[in-house]
Amino acid sequence: MQKLKETISKIEKLDFSLMEETQKRLDALTKPKGSLGRLEEIAGQVVGITKKRNPSLKNKVIFVMAADHGVTEERVSAYPKEVTSQMVYNFINGKAAINVLAKHVGARVLVIDMGVASKLQITNCKLQNFKDKKINYGTKNMTKEPAMTKDEAVRAIEAGIEVFEEELSRGIDIVATGDMGIGNTTSSSAIASCLTGKSVKDLTGRGTGINDEVLLRKIEIVEKAIRINQPNSSDPVDVLSKVGGFEIGGLSGIILASASKRIPVVIDGFISGSAALIACSLKKEVKDFLIAGHCSAEKGHKLILEYLGLRPLLNLDMRLGEGTGASLGMSIVEASIKILSQMATFEEAGVSKRIGE
Amino acid sequence: MQKLKETISKIEKLDFSLMEETQKRLDALTKPKGSLGRLEEIAGQVVGITKKRNPSLKNKVIFVMAADHGVTEERVSAYPKEVTSQMVYNFINGKAAINVLAKHVGARVLVIDMGVASKLQITNCKLQNFKDKKINYGTKNMTKEPAMTKDEAVRAIEAGIEVFEEELSRGIDIVATGDMGIGNTTSSSAIASCLTGKSVKDLTGRGTGINDEVLLRKIEIVEKAIRINQPNSSDPVDVLSKVGGFEIGGLSGIILASASKRIPVVIDGFISGSAALIACSLKKEVKDFLIAGHCSAEKGHKLILEYLGLRPLLNLDMRLGEGTGASLGMSIVEASIKILSQMATFEEAGVSKRIGE
Repeated sequence: MQKLKETISKIEKLDFSLMEETQKRLDALTKPKGSLGRLEEIAGQVVGITKKRNPSLKNKVIFVMAADHGVTEERVSAYPKEVTSQMVYNFINGKAAINVLAKHVGARVLVIDMGVASKLQITNCKLQNFKDKKINYGTKNMTKEPAMTKDEAVRAIEAGIEVFEEELSRGIDIVATGDMGIGNTTSSSAIASCLTGKSVKDLTGRGTGINDEVLLRKIEIVEKAIRINQPNSSDPVDVLSKVGGFEIGGLSGIILASASKRIPVVIDGFISGSAALIACSLKKEVKDFLIAGHCSAEKGHKLILEYLGLRPLLNLDMRLGEGTGASLGMSIVEASIKILSQMATFEEAGVSKRIGE
Repeated sequence: MQKLKETISKIEKLDFSLMEETQKRLDALTKPKGSLGRLEEIAGQVVGITKKRNPSLKNKVIFVMAADHGVTEERVSAYPKEVTSQMVYNFINGKAAINVLAKHVGARVLVIDMGVASKLQITNCKLQNFKDKKINYGTKNMTKEPAMTKDEAVRAIEAGIEVFEEELSRGIDIVATGDMGIGNTTSSSAIASCLTGKSVKDLTGRGTGINDEVLLRKIEIVEKAIRINQPNSSDPVDVLSKVGGFEIGGLSGIILASASKRIPVVIDGFISGSAALIACSLKKEVKDFLIAGHCSAEKGHKLILEYLGLRPLLNLDMRLGEGTGASLGMSIVEASIKILSQMATFEEAGVSKRIGE
């Protein structure tokens, strides 16, 4: 609990005066004021986060955290739970969607076993892109008992903080969050309902693509998990332990650690959104360090973003997770910083200003 | 007129059967079916356009066409008309927003003088990124007479086709359109109103940032230009000649030439939208070769996209032109093609399929 408390205590506000200065610089560049819209807003935010006038976003890291969910016993997913571990191998072999998109945007992918239900066999040569932080072999079935102990919940968040700290020596300028875990939209719906107060029905979607019948069961399952465990909605660690997942806790840790080191975090879809809810419930200032990479097609993500007051960069009807939406969003963020640092001003380029200025 | 007719006659339909085959391939990749949303849709479209199973989008070219507008005499812009030529130099020196974003996405920028109102002095060393296709020294004031002759309108479109054909030897896999021309939102509003039938008021916005008073005058100016010239809305070349601009005609030519060579075109904002309207009015099949890079904050662009039936990839409140929105969109298109060609299938990765499949 010590590491978590320390991390939270280090999270401060953005540097608002440097952000104002940055907007003035953006206004002096050869373009009509404000004409780059959200690129200008994001550039200002990144400056405010990093406290650097010309931040570099060279080291882009996507943390993909994987874990299994006991609630899959209730047949809430379209895929068997073995897919979690199979996809971890796919990530490590560089052949999943997130690998393709990470390469496209010039980011590196770090895969973390936070609680996959089997013992993974990772060859030595792949270890630089993999970390074993397994808290347990999957969560318990949350319709019958808490998903994890309170101690495991704290350890999951702290493992996320550790992963971030260990990776820092390789250089991190911007972070994206990603997830893998069959059953984790079920857990995220429960977390989001507890922490936003919105109805389970509004927050529960089709995940990997379940039909109407399974969707109705999934809603009942989430409601049952909340009824059985009675999470304390004012205690995000309690919520995580009762209805959460190890990868979700780990991602909350990544988010908190990034904010404590003043590094911007691009969050992905519904699962990352529930991790962000936990992080922001632990420390509300965290929200200012977040950039919503995209709005997922998974019902409920939009509600999470609205609750957090985040406007997504992209709306591409994606619903894959893994950090895929965040990785594309990260490239937009990088573009915004290049605008800030590489464009000429009106003076430098000898371009006339507005009439009357 | 011969070149224009020939180009139009070569534009065919997409290869719909190859697109169906592509969706099956996308469905076999290690992700839930359809979970990459619009990336999958765009990958299919690019395959249908190029007739290539694995198209490469290595050679990305942004055509930025510049010209002046006589209607600036009516004080419709927040900037003096000298800015058009000054920005051309800025483009050629690589310091404008489009240069920064082009570099970010790995595209090259070709700047074309389609009708800047002064004689440009371009040093030899910069000529590889510049083409002189000047039709005339700016258009005439369209509130008093046609912006250009019918012959100039045809030559502007054909110059766009020529630029494209000349550039083809350097390699073009995907095109983005961009514009520079003080006064060109005024012209685009007039074109869009003629070709979509929507009201001038709904199609006229603040351009580079005019105030309420100038906006009201701008609407009157556009209405007057249409009233005086009576463009024939069923003849897009007549519309271009009466209320258009040389850069807009040139961009229509780029779009038609790309479609005729089965190369995808990412269109930028309001000005590119009006060029797309002209191209699609000349040959309706052109629409299938277009990808809307973004939705501009310039009022009216949304209406053009709706009229054309195009859904923008990005919504970042940008309104700069130059191809800035299209360049970021182009990177999303490239990502979609990498997904198609670089991901593992369920079989290859040994990942279990959906339960029951």
